[in-house]
Amino acid sequence: MLLYDGGRAPNPRRVRIFLAEKGIKVPMKPVDMAALGHRSAEITTLNPFQRLPVLELDDGTVLTESVAICRYFEELHPDPALMGIDALDKAVVEMWNRRMELHFLWFVAAAFRHTHPAMKEWEVPQVAEYGEANRPKAMKTMEFLDTELNGRPFIAGPRFTIADITAMMAVDMLKPARIERPVHLENLMRWYVDVSSRPSAAA
Amino acid sequence: MLLYDGGRAPNPRRVRIFLAEKGIKVPMKPVDMAALGHRSAEITTLNPFQRLPVLELDDGTVLTESVAICRYFEELHPDPALMGIDALDKAVVEMWNRRMELHFLWFVAAAFRHTHPAMKEWEVPQVAEYGEANRPKAMKTMEFLDTELNGRPFIAGPRFTIADITAMMAVDMLKPARIERPVHLENLMRWYVDVSSRPSAAA
Repeated sequence: MLLYDGGRAPNPRRVRIFLAEKGIKVPMKPVDMAALGHRSAEITTLNPFQRLPVLELDDGTVLTESVAICRYFEELHPDPALMGIDALDKAVVEMWNRRMELHFLWFVAAAFRHTHPAMKEWEVPQVAEYGEANRPKAMKTMEFLDTELNGRPFIAGPRFTIADITAMMAVDMLKPARIERPVHLENLMRWYVDVSSRPSAAA
Repeated sequence: MLLYDGGRAPNPRRVRIFLAEKGIKVPMKPVDMAALGHRSAEITTLNPFQRLPVLELDDGTVLTESVAICRYFEELHPDPALMGIDALDKAVVEMWNRRMELHFLWFVAAAFRHTHPAMKEWEVPQVAEYGEANRPKAMKTMEFLDTELNGRPFIAGPRFTIADITAMMAVDMLKPARIERPVHLENLMRWYVDVSSRPSAAA
């Protein structure tokens, strides 16, 4: 198999961190997203939506969408479980991962993509008013998370899961999205120090 | 258990159709979203993000996010499988469901929420320019789907899955989103007639 990787962008990082937590090594081919490599003919053929990462299996099957790629590895290598351990826990982890995607990472990414000059060719058209409207929404989610993380080690409960990876990507994107780092939210900051100091975070 | 239902909105419908396909009956409590019932104190306590549906289990556990609720029932009642049958198929179904969410339903919903007068209190602030930018993106995805559905019965392959439910919600929202119904896309229209004539579509 071959993983077409996209460097520092959040979605390629999510999959690399997921693999690092599981101790799985996958051959990777770097794609230079800063040079718009994800819009090349090669990537467009693999993924018409021109997003990375893309996983190509040996039989030619192509998997796209970060969480779908993670799902494949979770099913093949269940330990350590990053997407839940039984029916209810799988649902709880999915709930939290989706909350982190839809109510956090999306808000931060929208602020970044719709307002940052470097994103002009990525997000067409950029709508600054929409980007700006997402900043207070991201802050509201962080305040909610801070109360949830009071006495709870990780986003979805007692174990590190894919929801922590997604939320970490959102916090890491605050600066380019020009959203204030909420240093007053002590539980959130404690959680962030914990997850970002895991060896996998460097993947 | 009790499912707090939200009527005709796409996410409550997704879960009801999913349950109908599996033949599962769950006690439901209707919530009037037109009267902003999803922002009531009762729902806000259950789901601080004020979205429906919400599933409350007998032990008090609360599940939100439509696909997480579906995951719970899929794990408990695997037949018929609506989220994949083995590791690779589960990943493929997740890929297609996410493509339908992020590259189709999101575009249509954004056009609707950011431009329709009835959505003024739902989407704050409405950014008309952003809503309008989503219409051609939805059309592009429909053109892509039309080529994919050439000779393939369902969105994710040979079986009806959750990806079909998500895509059906997007097509059903074209009219209020003021996006042209692509009657010239014959494969897509054939698929839509097939899925929307299943008994579950009335759920």
